[in-house]
Amino acid sequence: MVFEQLALIGCGLMGGSFALAAREAGLVKRVSGYSRSAHSAQRAQALGVVDTVAATAEQCVQGADLVLLAVPVASTEATLRSLLPGLAPHALVMDVGSTKQDVVLAAQAAMGERMAQFVPAHPICGKEVAGIEHADAKLYQHQQVILTPLPCHAQATVAQASEVWRRLGCRVRELAPALHDQALAAVSHFPHMMAFAFMHSLMAQPEGEQFLALGGPGFRDSTRIAAGDADLWCDVLLANSGPVLAQAQGLRRALAELEGLVQRQDRPALRGLIAQVSQRRADWRMAGDIAPPPPSSPAD
Amino acid sequence: MVFEQLALIGCGLMGGSFALAAREAGLVKRVSGYSRSAHSAQRAQALGVVDTVAATAEQCVQGADLVLLAVPVASTEATLRSLLPGLAPHALVMDVGSTKQDVVLAAQAAMGERMAQFVPAHPICGKEVAGIEHADAKLYQHQQVILTPLPCHAQATVAQASEVWRRLGCRVRELAPALHDQALAAVSHFPHMMAFAFMHSLMAQPEGEQFLALGGPGFRDSTRIAAGDADLWCDVLLANSGPVLAQAQGLRRALAELEGLVQRQDRPALRGLIAQVSQRRADWRMAGDIAPPPPSSPAD
Repeated sequence: MVFEQLALIGCGLMGGSFALAAREAGLVKRVSGYSRSAHSAQRAQALGVVDTVAATAEQCVQGADLVLLAVPVASTEATLRSLLPGLAPHALVMDVGSTKQDVVLAAQAAMGERMAQFVPAHPICGKEVAGIEHADAKLYQHQQVILTPLPCHAQATVAQASEVWRRLGCRVRELAPALHDQALAAVSHFPHMMAFAFMHSLMAQPEGEQFLALGGPGFRDSTRIAAGDADLWCDVLLANSGPVLAQAQGLRRALAELEGLVQRQDRPALRGLIAQVSQRRADWRMAGDIAPPPPSSPAD
Repeated sequence: MVFEQLALIGCGLMGGSFALAAREAGLVKRVSGYSRSAHSAQRAQALGVVDTVAATAEQCVQGADLVLLAVPVASTEATLRSLLPGLAPHALVMDVGSTKQDVVLAAQAAMGERMAQFVPAHPICGKEVAGIEHADAKLYQHQQVILTPLPCHAQATVAQASEVWRRLGCRVRELAPALHDQALAAVSHFPHMMAFAFMHSLMAQPEGEQFLALGGPGFRDSTRIAAGDADLWCDVLLANSGPVLAQAQGLRRALAELEGLVQRQDRPALRGLIAQVSQRRADWRMAGDIAPPPPSSPAD
Protein backbone atom coordinates (compact mmCIF):
# COMPACT_ATOMS: atom_id res chain seq x y z
CA MET A 1 0.00 0.00 0.00
CA VAL A 2 1.49 3.30 -1.13
CA PHE A 3 -0.39 6.58 -1.38
CA GLU A 4 0.49 9.04 -4.12
CA GLN A 5 -0.24 12.13 -2.04
CA LEU A 6 -0.92 12.83 1.59
CA ALA A 7 -2.80 16.07 2.22
CA LEU A 8 -1.98 17.33 5.67
CA ILE A 9 -4.67 19.69 6.95
CA GLY A 10 -3.22 21.34 10.03
CA CYS A 11 0.56 21.51 10.38
CA GLY A 12 1.12 21.05 14.10
CA LEU A 13 2.72 18.40 16.32
CA MET A 14 0.29 15.57 15.51
CA GLY A 15 -0.03 16.23 11.80
CA GLY A 16 3.65 16.93 11.26
CA SER A 17 4.63 13.77 13.11
CA PHE A 18 2.21 11.76 10.97
CA ALA A 19 3.68 13.16 7.75
CA LEU A 20 7.24 12.42 8.87
CA ALA A 21 6.34 8.90 9.98
CA ALA A 22 4.33 8.14 6.83
CA ARG A 23 7.20 9.24 4.63
CA GLU A 24 9.72 7.24 6.67
CA ALA A 25 7.49 4.16 6.38
CA GLY A 26 7.33 4.55 2.60
CA LEU A 27 3.58 4.98 2.89
CA VAL A 28 3.27 8.24 0.90
CA LYS A 29 5.15 9.62 -2.12
CA ARG A 30 4.52 13.33 -1.58
CA VAL A 31 2.90 15.57 1.01
CA SER A 32 0.89 18.75 0.50
CA GLY A 33 0.25 20.91 3.53
CA TYR A 34 -2.29 23.48 4.60
CA SER A 35 -2.67 25.36 7.85
CA ARG A 36 -5.01 28.14 8.90
CA SER A 37 -2.00 30.23 9.88
CA ALA A 38 0.15 30.37 6.75
CA HIS A 39 3.21 30.48 8.99
CA SER A 40 2.83 26.89 10.28
CA ALA A 41 2.57 25.40 6.78
CA GLN A 42 5.58 27.42 5.63
CA ARG A 43 7.57 26.21 8.65
CA ALA A 44 6.48 22.65 7.81
CA GLN A 45 7.83 23.10 4.30
CA ALA A 46 11.08 24.64 5.55
CA LEU A 47 11.52 21.67 7.89
CA GLY A 48 10.90 19.22 5.05
CA VAL A 49 7.70 17.88 6.61
CA VAL A 50 5.54 18.85 3.59
CA ASP A 51 6.66 19.25 -0.02
CA THR A 52 4.20 21.94 -1.05
CA VAL A 53 2.05 24.50 0.73
CA ALA A 54 -1.52 25.04 -0.42
CA ALA A 55 -3.41 28.31 -0.01
CA THR A 56 -6.67 26.60 0.95
CA ALA A 57 -7.77 23.25 2.36
CA GLU A 58 -9.61 22.59 -0.91
CA GLN A 59 -6.42 23.06 -2.94
CA CYS A 60 -4.46 20.96 -0.47
CA VAL A 61 -6.60 17.85 -0.97
CA GLN A 62 -6.59 18.09 -4.78
CA GLY A 63 -4.79 15.03 -6.09
CA ALA A 64 -4.59 13.48 -2.63
CA ASP A 65 -5.57 9.85 -1.98
CA LEU A 66 -4.90 10.18 1.77
CA VAL A 67 -6.04 13.14 3.88
CA LEU A 68 -5.14 13.68 7.51
CA LEU A 69 -7.17 16.21 9.42
CA ALA A 70 -5.05 17.40 12.34
CA VAL A 71 -6.93 20.45 13.58
CA PRO A 72 -8.65 21.25 16.90
CA VAL A 73 -11.74 19.04 17.24
CA ALA A 74 -13.94 22.15 17.40
CA SER A 75 -12.80 23.06 13.86
CA THR A 76 -13.70 19.68 12.32
CA GLU A 77 -16.98 20.63 10.66
CA ALA A 78 -15.81 23.94 9.12
CA THR A 79 -12.55 22.40 7.90
CA LEU A 80 -14.26 19.40 6.28
CA ARG A 81 -16.79 21.70 4.57
CA SER A 82 -14.02 23.78 3.10
CA LEU A 83 -11.98 20.87 1.75
CA LEU A 84 -14.90 18.78 0.44
CA PRO A 85 -15.14 20.37 -3.05
CA GLY A 86 -11.54 19.34 -3.79
CA LEU A 87 -11.73 15.84 -2.31
CA ALA A 88 -11.40 12.87 -4.71
CA PRO A 89 -14.12 10.21 -4.26
CA HIS A 90 -11.56 7.48 -3.59
CA ALA A 91 -9.50 9.45 -1.03
CA LEU A 92 -9.35 8.13 2.53
CA VAL A 93 -9.82 10.84 5.19
CA MET A 94 -8.91 10.44 8.88
CA ASP A 95 -8.53 12.72 11.86
CA VAL A 96 -6.47 12.53 15.06
CA GLY A 97 -8.93 14.13 17.49
CA SER A 98 -9.04 13.12 21.15
CA THR A 99 -12.85 13.00 21.18
CA LYS A 100 -14.99 11.03 18.76
CA GLN A 101 -18.73 11.57 19.24
CA ASP A 102 -18.43 15.27 18.44
CA VAL A 103 -16.09 14.56 15.52
CA VAL A 104 -18.56 12.01 14.10
CA LEU A 105 -21.43 14.49 14.36
CA ALA A 106 -19.35 17.27 12.81
CA ALA A 107 -18.15 15.04 9.97
CA GLN A 108 -21.65 13.75 9.27
CA ALA A 109 -22.95 17.33 9.11
CA ALA A 110 -20.15 18.43 6.78
CA MET A 111 -19.85 15.35 4.54
CA GLY A 112 -23.32 13.85 4.37
CA GLU A 113 -23.18 10.74 2.17
CA ARG A 114 -19.44 11.10 1.72
CA MET A 115 -19.02 10.25 5.41
CA ALA A 116 -18.09 6.76 4.13
CA GLN A 117 -14.69 8.27 3.16
CA PHE A 118 -13.98 9.58 6.67
CA VAL A 119 -12.79 7.06 9.26
CA PRO A 120 -12.55 8.74 12.70
CA ALA A 121 -9.22 7.94 14.35
CA HIS A 122 -7.57 8.74 17.66
CA PRO A 123 -3.92 7.95 18.23
CA ILE A 124 -3.42 7.88 22.02
CA CYS A 125 -0.21 9.83 22.28
CA GLY A 126 1.09 13.37 22.23
CA LYS A 127 3.60 15.69 23.81
CA GLU A 128 3.44 18.59 26.25
CA VAL A 129 4.66 20.86 23.47
CA ALA A 130 2.64 21.98 20.48
CA GLY A 131 3.75 23.04 17.03
CA ILE A 132 5.46 21.71 13.93
CA GLU A 133 8.91 22.33 15.45
CA HIS A 134 8.32 19.39 17.77
CA ALA A 135 7.09 17.00 15.06
CA ASP A 136 8.68 13.60 15.60
CA ALA A 137 8.67 10.63 13.23
CA LYS A 138 8.68 8.31 16.26
CA LEU A 139 5.67 9.85 18.03
CA TYR A 140 3.25 7.13 16.92
CA GLN A 141 5.55 4.15 17.31
CA HIS A 142 4.24 1.50 19.74
CA GLN A 143 1.17 3.61 20.49
CA GLN A 144 -2.48 2.65 20.36
CA VAL A 145 -4.87 4.05 17.78
CA ILE A 146 -8.62 3.80 18.20
CA LEU A 147 -10.81 3.80 15.11
CA THR A 148 -14.52 4.45 15.59
CA PRO A 149 -16.06 3.27 12.29
CA LEU A 150 -19.80 3.55 11.65
CA PRO A 151 -22.24 1.31 9.76
CA CYS A 152 -21.71 3.51 6.66
CA HIS A 153 -18.07 2.45 6.41
CA ALA A 154 -17.12 -0.37 4.03
CA GLN A 155 -15.01 -3.16 5.51
CA ALA A 156 -12.29 -2.43 2.96
CA THR A 157 -12.14 1.23 3.95
CA VAL A 158 -11.72 0.39 7.64
CA ALA A 159 -9.10 -2.23 6.80
CA GLN A 160 -7.20 0.34 4.75
CA ALA A 161 -7.39 2.87 7.60
CA SER A 162 -6.09 0.25 10.06
CA GLU A 163 -3.23 -0.63 7.76
CA VAL A 164 -2.10 3.01 7.56
CA TRP A 165 -1.60 3.16 11.33
CA ARG A 166 -0.10 -0.29 11.55
CA ARG A 167 2.53 0.77 9.04
CA LEU A 168 3.48 3.59 11.45
CA GLY A 169 4.03 1.02 14.19
CA CYS A 170 0.68 1.43 15.97
CA ARG A 171 -1.68 -1.09 17.53
CA VAL A 172 -5.15 -0.50 16.16
CA ARG A 173 -8.46 -1.11 17.96
CA GLU A 174 -12.04 -0.36 17.05
CA LEU A 175 -14.58 1.08 19.46
CA ALA A 176 -17.99 2.70 19.27
CA PRO A 177 -17.62 6.52 19.46
CA ALA A 178 -19.54 6.81 22.75
CA LEU A 179 -17.47 4.09 24.43
CA HIS A 180 -14.29 5.72 23.12
CA ASP A 181 -15.25 9.03 24.70
CA GLN A 182 -16.13 7.44 28.04
CA ALA A 183 -12.92 5.44 28.13
CA LEU A 184 -10.71 8.36 27.12
CA ALA A 185 -12.43 10.62 29.64
CA ALA A 186 -11.41 8.06 32.26
CA VAL A 187 -7.78 7.47 31.29
CA SER A 188 -6.79 10.70 29.57
CA HIS A 189 -9.14 13.69 29.63
CA PHE A 190 -10.00 13.62 33.32
CA PRO A 191 -6.41 12.86 34.40
CA HIS A 192 -5.42 16.04 32.56
CA MET A 193 -8.19 17.99 34.30
CA MET A 194 -7.09 16.57 37.65
CA ALA A 195 -3.47 17.54 36.95
CA PHE A 196 -4.56 21.08 35.99
CA ALA A 197 -6.66 21.30 39.17
CA PHE A 198 -3.76 20.04 41.28
CA MET A 199 -1.36 22.66 39.88
CA HIS A 200 -4.08 25.30 40.31
CA SER A 201 -4.48 24.32 43.96
CA LEU A 202 -0.72 24.45 44.55
CA MET A 203 -0.40 27.85 42.90
CA ALA A 204 -3.30 29.24 44.96
CA GLN A 205 -1.38 28.63 48.22
CA PRO A 206 0.80 31.43 49.62
CA GLU A 207 3.67 28.94 50.05
CA GLY A 208 3.00 27.35 46.65
CA GLU A 209 6.27 28.38 45.03
CA GLN A 210 8.26 27.22 48.04
CA PHE A 211 6.48 23.86 47.92
CA LEU A 212 7.00 23.51 44.17
CA ALA A 213 10.76 23.84 44.65
CA LEU A 214 10.71 20.59 46.64
CA GLY A 215 9.01 18.42 44.04
CA GLY A 216 10.91 15.24 43.21
CA PRO A 217 10.61 12.53 40.56
CA GLY A 218 7.09 11.56 41.69
CA PHE A 219 5.87 15.12 41.33
CA ARG A 220 7.63 15.48 37.99
CA ASP A 221 6.00 12.41 36.45
CA SER A 222 2.55 12.74 37.98
CA THR A 223 2.19 16.36 36.82
CA ARG A 224 3.89 16.07 33.42
CA ILE A 225 0.51 16.20 31.68
CA ALA A 226 -0.39 19.45 33.46
CA ALA A 227 1.93 21.18 30.97
CA GLY A 228 -0.41 20.14 28.13
CA ASP A 229 -1.40 22.65 25.47
CA ALA A 230 -4.14 24.95 26.77
CA ASP A 231 -6.05 25.28 23.47
CA LEU A 232 -6.09 21.54 22.84
CA TRP A 233 -7.18 20.56 26.35
CA CYS A 234 -9.74 23.31 26.73
CA ASP A 235 -11.21 22.01 23.48
CA VAL A 236 -11.22 18.38 24.61
CA LEU A 237 -12.69 18.99 28.07
CA LEU A 238 -15.52 21.08 26.64
CA ALA A 239 -16.18 18.64 23.80
CA ASN A 240 -16.35 15.62 26.13
CA SER A 241 -17.80 17.37 29.16
CA GLY A 242 -20.37 14.72 30.15
CA PRO A 243 -17.99 11.78 30.60
CA VAL A 244 -15.30 14.07 32.02
CA LEU A 245 -17.62 15.43 34.72
CA ALA A 246 -18.72 11.88 35.54
CA GLN A 247 -15.09 10.94 36.14
CA ALA A 248 -14.62 14.03 38.31
CA GLN A 249 -17.49 12.84 40.47
CA GLY A 250 -15.94 9.38 40.72
CA LEU A 251 -12.63 10.82 41.85
CA ARG A 252 -14.39 13.04 44.37
CA ARG A 253 -16.09 9.98 45.87
CA ALA A 254 -12.89 7.90 45.98
CA LEU A 255 -10.92 10.77 47.49
CA ALA A 256 -13.56 11.30 50.18
CA GLU A 257 -13.29 7.62 51.08
CA LEU A 258 -9.51 7.87 51.47
CA GLU A 259 -9.81 11.14 53.40
CA GLY A 260 -12.21 9.45 55.80
CA LEU A 261 -9.77 6.60 56.44
CA VAL A 262 -6.90 9.03 57.05
CA GLN A 263 -9.03 11.19 59.33
CA ARG A 264 -10.12 8.18 61.39
CA GLN A 265 -6.53 6.82 61.30
CA ASP A 266 -8.00 3.52 60.11
CA ARG A 267 -4.73 1.81 59.27
CA PRO A 268 -6.04 -1.66 58.26
CA ALA A 269 -8.66 -0.30 55.84
CA LEU A 270 -6.28 2.33 54.40
CA ARG A 271 -3.53 -0.22 53.94
CA GLY A 272 -5.97 -2.63 52.29
CA LEU A 273 -7.25 -0.02 49.87
CA ILE A 274 -3.78 1.20 48.89
CA ALA A 275 -2.48 -2.38 48.54
CA GLN A 276 -5.30 -3.20 46.13
CA VAL A 277 -4.88 -0.20 43.82
CA SER A 278 -1.11 -0.30 44.04
CA GLN A 279 -1.07 -3.94 42.94
CA ARG A 280 -3.37 -3.21 40.01
CA ARG A 281 -1.19 -0.32 38.86
CA ALA A 282 1.98 -2.38 39.26
CA ASP A 283 0.44 -5.07 37.04
CA TRP A 284 -0.77 -2.61 34.40
CA ARG A 285 1.03 -2.50 31.06
CA MET A 286 0.54 0.04 28.32
CA ALA A 287 -1.02 -1.75 25.35
CA GLY A 288 1.68 -0.46 23.00
CA ASP A 289 4.32 -2.13 25.17
CA ILE A 290 2.66 -5.54 24.98
CA ALA A 291 3.66 -7.72 22.03
CA PRO A 292 0.88 -7.41 19.43
CA PRO A 293 -1.28 -10.46 18.68
CA PRO A 294 -0.68 -12.30 15.40
CA PRO A 295 -2.13 -10.48 12.34
CA SER A 296 -5.89 -10.89 12.30
CA SER A 297 -8.36 -11.08 9.46
CA PRO A 298 -9.85 -7.74 8.33
CA ALA A 299 -12.13 -6.14 10.90
CA ASP A 300 -15.77 -7.01 10.59
CA MET B 1 35.64 12.40 55.40
CA VAL B 2 35.60 8.61 55.67
CA PHE B 3 33.55 6.61 58.16
CA GLU B 4 34.94 3.41 59.61
CA GLN B 5 31.59 1.66 59.85
CA LEU B 6 28.10 2.33 58.59
CA ALA B 7 25.37 0.61 60.60
CA LEU B 8 22.37 0.07 58.38
CA ILE B 9 19.21 -0.35 60.43
CA GLY B 10 16.57 -1.62 58.02
CA CYS B 11 17.72 -3.41 54.88
CA GLY B 12 15.20 -2.29 52.27
CA LEU B 13 15.29 -0.21 49.10
CA MET B 14 16.26 3.10 50.71
CA GLY B 15 18.78 1.72 53.19
CA GLY B 16 20.35 -0.71 50.74
CA SER B 17 20.72 2.01 48.11
CA PHE B 18 22.38 4.26 50.68
CA ALA B 19 24.88 1.57 51.64
CA LEU B 20 25.75 0.84 48.01
CA ALA B 21 26.13 4.53 47.19
CA ALA B 22 28.18 5.27 50.32
CA ARG B 23 30.56 2.46 49.53
CA GLU B 24 30.85 3.52 45.89
CA ALA B 25 31.61 7.08 47.01
CA GLY B 26 34.37 5.84 49.30
CA LEU B 27 32.46 7.27 52.24
CA VAL B 28 32.42 4.12 54.43
CA LYS B 29 34.92 1.31 54.97
CA ARG B 30 32.54 -1.42 56.14
CA VAL B 31 28.82 -1.90 56.60
CA SER B 32 26.97 -3.80 59.30
CA GLY B 33 23.31 -4.55 58.73
CA TYR B 34 20.28 -5.29 60.83
CA SER B 35 16.67 -5.84 59.84
CA ARG B 36 13.65 -6.85 61.84
CA SER B 37 13.11 -9.77 59.48
CA ALA B 38 16.40 -11.68 59.50
CA HIS B 39 15.77 -12.61 55.89
CA SER B 40 16.25 -9.04 54.54
CA ALA B 41 19.59 -8.57 56.26
CA GLN B 42 20.78 -11.97 55.03
CA ARG B 43 19.74 -11.07 51.48
CA ALA B 44 21.59 -7.77 51.88
CA GLN B 45 24.71 -9.69 52.85
CA ALA B 46 24.31 -12.15 49.99
CA LEU B 47 23.98 -9.22 47.57
CA GLY B 48 27.12 -7.60 48.98
CA VAL B 49 25.22 -4.59 50.33
CA VAL B 50 26.31 -5.22 53.94
CA ASP B 51 29.44 -7.01 55.14
CA THR B 52 28.05 -8.43 58.37
CA VAL B 53 24.61 -9.16 59.76
CA ALA B 54 23.86 -8.27 63.38
CA ALA B 55 21.29 -10.09 65.50
CA THR B 56 20.02 -6.88 67.12
CA ALA B 57 20.00 -3.16 66.34
CA GLU B 58 22.18 -2.61 69.41
CA GLN B 59 24.84 -5.01 68.13
CA CYS B 60 24.62 -3.49 64.67
CA VAL B 61 25.59 0.01 65.81
CA GLN B 62 28.51 -1.19 67.96
CA GLY B 63 31.66 0.23 66.44
CA ALA B 64 29.71 2.36 63.97
CA ASP B 65 30.47 6.06 63.46
CA LEU B 66 27.59 6.46 60.96
CA VAL B 67 24.11 5.03 61.49
CA LEU B 68 21.32 5.10 58.92
CA LEU B 69 17.84 4.38 60.16
CA ALA B 70 15.83 3.16 57.18
CA VAL B 71 12.69 1.75 58.80
CA PRO B 72 9.01 2.74 58.57
CA VAL B 73 8.52 6.13 60.26
CA ALA B 74 6.11 4.55 62.72
CA SER B 75 8.96 2.31 64.01
CA THR B 76 11.36 5.19 64.66
CA GLU B 77 10.97 5.46 68.43
CA ALA B 78 11.12 1.74 69.19
CA THR B 79 14.10 1.22 66.89
CA LEU B 80 16.10 4.11 68.34
CA ARG B 81 15.38 2.88 71.88
CA SER B 82 16.70 -0.55 71.03
CA LEU B 83 19.93 0.63 69.40
CA LEU B 84 20.76 3.39 71.88
CA PRO B 85 22.71 1.26 74.41
CA GLY B 86 25.20 0.28 71.68
CA LEU B 87 25.55 3.73 70.11
CA ALA B 88 28.96 5.46 70.38
CA PRO B 89 28.74 9.08 71.58
CA HIS B 90 30.49 10.38 68.46
CA ALA B 91 28.35 8.45 65.95
CA LEU B 92 26.18 10.44 63.55
CA VAL B 93 22.64 9.05 63.16
CA MET B 94 20.26 9.94 60.33
CA ASP B 95 16.98 8.61 58.99
CA VAL B 96 15.34 8.66 55.55
CA GLY B 97 11.69 9.07 56.60
CA SER B 98 9.20 10.95 54.42
CA THR B 99 7.74 12.81 57.41
CA LYS B 100 9.71 14.80 59.90
CA GLN B 101 7.59 16.20 62.75
CA ASP B 102 6.65 12.72 63.92
CA VAL B 103 10.23 11.49 63.48
CA VAL B 104 11.55 14.41 65.55
CA LEU B 105 9.06 13.69 68.34
CA ALA B 106 9.84 9.97 68.27
CA ALA B 107 13.60 10.58 68.26
CA GLN B 108 13.37 13.08 71.10
CA ALA B 109 11.35 10.61 73.15
CA ALA B 110 13.81 7.79 72.50
CA MET B 111 17.11 9.66 72.66
CA GLY B 112 16.57 12.50 75.13
CA GLU B 113 19.81 14.48 75.41
CA ARG B 114 21.46 12.34 72.77
CA MET B 115 19.09 13.84 70.18
CA ALA B 116 22.08 16.03 69.25
CA GLN B 117 23.49 12.94 67.47
CA PHE B 118 20.39 12.41 65.34
CA VAL B 119 19.96 14.69 62.30
CA PRO B 120 16.55 14.05 60.68
CA ALA B 121 16.91 13.65 56.92
CA HIS B 122 14.58 13.06 54.00
CA PRO B 123 15.94 12.22 50.57
CA ILE B 124 13.14 13.04 48.10
CA CYS B 125 13.31 9.98 45.91
CA GLY B 126 12.25 6.36 45.83
CA LYS B 127 10.93 3.65 43.58
CA GLU B 128 7.60 1.90 43.14
CA VAL B 129 9.24 -1.32 44.26
CA ALA B 130 10.31 -2.11 47.80
CA GLY B 131 12.99 -4.44 49.09
CA ILE B 132 16.75 -4.89 49.10
CA GLU B 133 16.63 -6.62 45.67
CA HIS B 134 15.91 -3.24 44.11
CA ALA B 135 18.66 -1.36 45.94
CA ASP B 136 20.42 0.94 43.50
CA ALA B 137 23.69 2.85 44.03
CA LYS B 138 22.33 5.60 41.74
CA LEU B 139 19.02 6.14 43.58
CA TYR B 140 20.20 9.27 45.40
CA GLN B 141 22.16 10.85 42.57
CA HIS B 142 20.93 14.32 41.59
CA GLN B 143 18.15 14.15 44.18
CA GLN B 144 17.25 16.61 46.90
CA VAL B 145 17.72 15.84 50.58
CA ILE B 146 16.00 17.89 53.26
CA LEU B 147 17.59 18.07 56.70
CA THR B 148 15.46 19.36 59.56
CA PRO B 149 18.00 20.19 62.27
CA LEU B 150 16.90 21.52 65.67
CA PRO B 151 18.47 24.04 68.07
CA CYS B 152 20.13 21.12 69.89
CA HIS B 153 22.26 20.28 66.88
CA ALA B 154 25.82 21.60 66.69
CA GLN B 155 26.77 23.36 63.46
CA ALA B 156 29.54 20.85 62.89
CA THR B 157 27.12 17.93 63.17
CA VAL B 158 24.75 19.42 60.62
CA ALA B 159 27.65 20.23 58.29
CA GLN B 160 28.85 16.63 58.57
CA ALA B 161 25.35 15.33 57.83
CA SER B 162 25.12 17.60 54.77
CA GLU B 163 28.48 16.42 53.53
CA VAL B 164 27.41 12.77 53.69
CA TRP B 165 24.53 13.40 51.28
CA ARG B 166 26.54 15.68 49.04
CA ARG B 167 29.09 12.94 48.62
CA LEU B 168 26.26 10.74 47.30
CA GLY B 169 25.47 13.38 44.66
CA CYS B 170 22.55 15.04 46.46
CA ARG B 171 21.54 18.66 46.83
CA VAL B 172 20.97 19.41 50.50
CA ARG B 173 18.52 21.91 51.97
CA GLU B 174 17.48 22.68 55.52
CA LEU B 175 13.89 23.26 56.59
CA ALA B 176 11.94 23.41 59.83
CA PRO B 177 10.19 20.05 60.44
CA ALA B 178 6.68 21.55 60.23
CA LEU B 179 7.41 23.34 56.95
CA HIS B 180 8.95 20.16 55.56
CA ASP B 181 5.81 18.21 56.34
CA GLN B 182 3.54 20.83 54.78
CA ALA B 183 5.66 21.07 51.65
CA LEU B 184 5.98 17.33 51.23
CA ALA B 185 2.25 16.85 51.80
CA ALA B 186 1.75 19.25 48.88
CA VAL B 187 4.23 17.83 46.37
CA SER B 188 4.50 14.18 47.37
CA HIS B 189 2.16 12.75 49.99
CA PHE B 190 -1.08 14.17 48.64
CA PRO B 191 -0.17 13.44 44.98
CA HIS B 192 0.22 9.80 46.04
CA MET B 193 -3.16 9.89 47.81
CA MET B 194 -4.73 11.46 44.71
CA ALA B 195 -3.19 8.79 42.48
CA PHE B 196 -4.47 6.04 44.79
CA ALA B 197 -7.93 7.65 44.78
CA PHE B 198 -7.90 7.93 41.00
CA MET B 199 -7.04 4.24 40.55
CA HIS B 200 -9.67 3.36 43.16
CA SER B 201 -12.27 5.34 41.23
CA LEU B 202 -11.33 3.65 37.95
CA MET B 203 -11.45 0.18 39.50
CA ALA B 204 -14.85 0.88 41.03
CA GLN B 205 -16.43 1.38 37.58
CA PRO B 206 -17.96 -1.63 35.81
CA GLU B 207 -16.03 -0.73 32.64
CA GLY B 208 -12.87 0.03 34.61
CA GLU B 209 -10.75 -2.77 33.17
CA GLN B 210 -11.82 -1.91 29.64
CA PHE B 211 -10.88 1.73 30.24
CA LEU B 212 -7.54 0.80 31.78
CA ALA B 213 -6.58 -1.08 28.61
CA LEU B 214 -6.69 2.23 26.72
CA GLY B 215 -4.31 4.17 28.92
CA GLY B 216 -1.42 5.77 27.02
CA PRO B 217 1.81 7.52 28.00
CA GLY B 218 -0.04 10.26 29.93
CA PHE B 219 -1.88 7.70 32.02
CA ARG B 220 1.31 5.72 32.55
CA ASP B 221 3.30 8.65 33.88
CA SER B 222 0.58 10.37 35.87
CA THR B 223 -0.31 7.15 37.73
CA ARG B 224 3.20 5.73 38.18
CA ILE B 225 3.18 6.73 41.85
CA ALA B 226 -0.09 4.84 42.43
CA ALA B 227 2.03 1.66 42.41
CA GLY B 228 3.83 2.87 45.55
CA ASP B 229 4.42 0.49 48.44
CA ALA B 230 1.24 0.14 50.52
CA ASP B 231 2.96 -0.13 53.92
CA LEU B 232 5.16 2.89 53.32
CA TRP B 233 2.39 5.14 52.01
CA CYS B 234 -0.18 4.10 54.56
CA ASP B 235 2.41 5.01 57.16
CA VAL B 236 3.18 8.39 55.61
CA LEU B 237 -0.44 9.46 55.04
CA LEU B 238 -1.38 8.62 58.63
CA ALA B 239 1.75 10.25 60.07
CA ASN B 240 1.22 13.50 58.13
CA SER B 241 -2.58 13.48 58.09
CA GLY B 242 -3.17 17.17 58.89
CA PRO B 243 -1.24 18.69 55.99
CA VAL B 244 -2.35 15.86 53.66
CA LEU B 245 -6.03 16.49 54.40
CA ALA B 246 -5.50 20.24 53.90
CA GLN B 247 -4.11 19.52 50.43
CA ALA B 248 -7.08 17.26 49.68
CA GLN B 249 -9.38 20.14 50.48
CA GLY B 250 -7.38 22.44 48.21
CA LEU B 251 -7.63 19.98 45.33
CA ARG B 252 -11.34 19.58 45.94
CA ARG B 253 -11.81 23.35 45.67
CA ALA B 254 -9.68 23.67 42.53
CA LEU B 255 -11.42 20.72 40.89
CA ALA B 256 -14.83 22.19 41.66
CA GLU B 257 -13.77 25.42 39.97
CA LEU B 258 -12.70 23.57 36.82
CA GLU B 259 -15.85 21.45 36.86
CA GLY B 260 -17.95 24.63 37.02
CA LEU B 261 -16.17 26.08 33.98
CA VAL B 262 -16.63 22.86 32.00
CA GLN B 263 -20.28 22.59 33.02
CA ARG B 264 -20.98 26.20 31.97
CA GLN B 265 -18.85 25.68 28.81
CA ASP B 266 -16.98 28.85 29.78
CA ARG B 267 -14.23 28.59 27.15
CA PRO B 268 -12.35 31.86 27.86
CA ALA B 269 -12.09 31.27 31.60
CA LEU B 270 -11.23 27.58 31.20
CA ARG B 271 -8.58 28.34 28.60
CA GLY B 272 -7.12 31.07 30.80
CA LEU B 273 -6.90 28.82 33.83
CA ILE B 274 -5.31 25.94 31.91
CA ALA B 275 -2.87 28.28 30.14
CA GLN B 276 -1.69 29.65 33.49
CA VAL B 277 -1.08 26.30 35.20
CA SER B 278 0.30 24.71 32.06
CA GLN B 279 2.86 27.50 31.67
CA ARG B 280 3.94 27.15 35.30
CA ARG B 281 4.39 23.40 34.96
CA ALA B 282 6.28 23.80 31.68
CA ASP B 283 8.68 26.22 33.42
CA TRP B 284 9.15 23.99 36.47
CA ARG B 285 12.47 22.18 36.90
CA MET B 286 13.29 19.54 39.44
CA ALA B 287 15.87 21.00 41.84
CA GLY B 288 18.18 18.02 41.34
CA ASP B 289 18.30 18.78 37.61
CA ILE B 290 19.37 22.39 38.16
CA ALA B 291 23.12 22.97 38.44
CA PRO B 292 23.95 23.29 42.16
CA PRO B 293 25.10 26.66 43.51
CA PRO B 294 28.80 27.06 44.40
CA PRO B 295 29.77 25.40 47.72
CA SER B 296 28.49 27.47 50.61
CA SER B 297 29.84 28.07 54.08
CA PRO B 298 28.63 25.64 56.76
CA ALA B 299 24.94 25.98 57.53
CA ASP B 300 24.04 28.21 60.39
